[in-house]
Amino acid sequence: MPRLTPYLHQYFGRLVAATSGPGLYPITVDVRGWVARQAISHGLLTRWCLHTLAYLLVQAKAAPEVLAELEAFFVRLVPEGRGLYRHEDEALDNMPTHIRASLTQTSISIPVQDAAPMLGEFQEIFLFEHRRGASGRSLNLHLMGEA
Amino acid sequence: MPRLTPYLHQYFGRLVAATSGPGLYPITVDVRGWVARQAISHGLLTRWCLHTLAYLLVQAKAAPEVLAELEAFFVRLVPEGRGLYRHEDEALDNMPTHIRASLTQTSISIPVQDAAPMLGEFQEIFLFEHRRGASGRSLNLHLMGEA
Amino acid sequence: MPRLTPYLHQYFGRLVAATSGPGLYPITVDVRGWVARQAISHGLLTRWCLHTLAYLLVQAKAAPEVLAELEAFFVRLVPEGRGLYRHEDEALDNMPTHIRASLTQTSISIPVQDAAPMLGEFQEIFLFEHRRGASGRSLNLHLMGEA
Repeated sequence: MPRLTPYLHQYFGRLVAATSGPGLYPITVDVRGWVARQAISHGLLTRWCLHTLAYLLVQAKAAPEVLAELEAFFVRLVPEGRGLYRHEDEALDNMPTHIRASLTQTSISIPVQDAAPMLGEFQEIFLFEHRRGASGRSLNLHLMGEA
Repeated sequence: MPRLTPYLHQYFGRLVAATSGPGLYPITVDVRGWVARQAISHGLLTRWCLHTLAYLLVQAKAAPEVLAELEAFFVRLVPEGRGLYRHEDEALDNMPTHIRASLTQTSISIPVQDAAPMLGEFQEIFLFEHRRGASGRSLNLHLMGEA
Repeated sequence: MPRLTPYLHQYFGRLVAATSGPGLYPITVDVRGWVARQAISHGLLTRWCLHTLAYLLVQAKAAPEVLAELEAFFVRLVPEGRGLYRHEDEALDNMPTHIRASLTQTSISIPVQDAAPMLGEFQEIFLFEHRRGASGRSLNLHLMGEA
């Protein structure tokens, strides 16, 4: 499916995901909506998470137990507790949260066709919030392509 | 090495990697071949894996023991076994596979020059299959640049 | 903040980060400098690390204890020691280094506005060196956008 496109354009946007404590928050609907509102049908979409305590992850949609297990794995792998880390100046969940976030992604780029990101049938884009108390996480969006 | 390019084009493609059980499957040759067949000499290549149980990884080529150890590490880190996960509705390797996949990448973007991805001397692109029984994994390819 | 850009250009560059043993080396200043010197104000920046024993990570800046803990976590998770891995033909730190590197990123793409990568307030881009003795790591840079 080759496409010749003499005039490429680009758009910038921002998406704020409301979060209330640790967990995987689906953002596919919001991302799809933003892409659909831009004047680009085919191109490349990049999302950049502006935080160091919440990152991006693409995983299976519509499977709450899978998501709960995924979250539980990250907590087991990087537990929280007094004396576990030297860096305890901030809240007790600060250091394990930094480490957990480092194991997923800050940026994700996906091809776009017919004004929609070309996700697999079972894929969902998540914001993976690791912090207690965080109430909003921002993503920068960038779309480059042809009308 | 700056390049001024008034006319950028883009191409879309798909690559299917045949897999037969867990392991690291090199896909560099197929990716290089696809890039070489597009009418773009300099640009940016993005690969997006359409699955949630097989992801992408860039690692050392021509070192089977390294790859075997890498795979063994992921299995030790996220073992399979009855009673280890609450989510057991599907096959026993379903849940650990989701978790292992989450630790590598869904999308990878690489600069292209002279119609070839600019890989390091020792780098190979792998599809990291975590699932038993999977027989084919699809990647979307997107190439944007100048002729 | 939509932007219509009939003429997109691209530039390629290389950045060499001096490393002296394992650790997180900030490269944001060098990356910003390179971006500022190209004739593009708005676009997409991609960095590709050319190695398999040092990868990229975006984490919190100005927090040495956090970085030290992050590094310590990767060492605990993938320890070094005789008999731990079958692949011991090379230096003892070779195999754990491959595995640690696999848990972070080879490529990162970030939107650029006003000739600067749109990093979050607390974000820093690091080269995560896992190897002893390595003295220089190369990154390819690619910037695509409008003047």
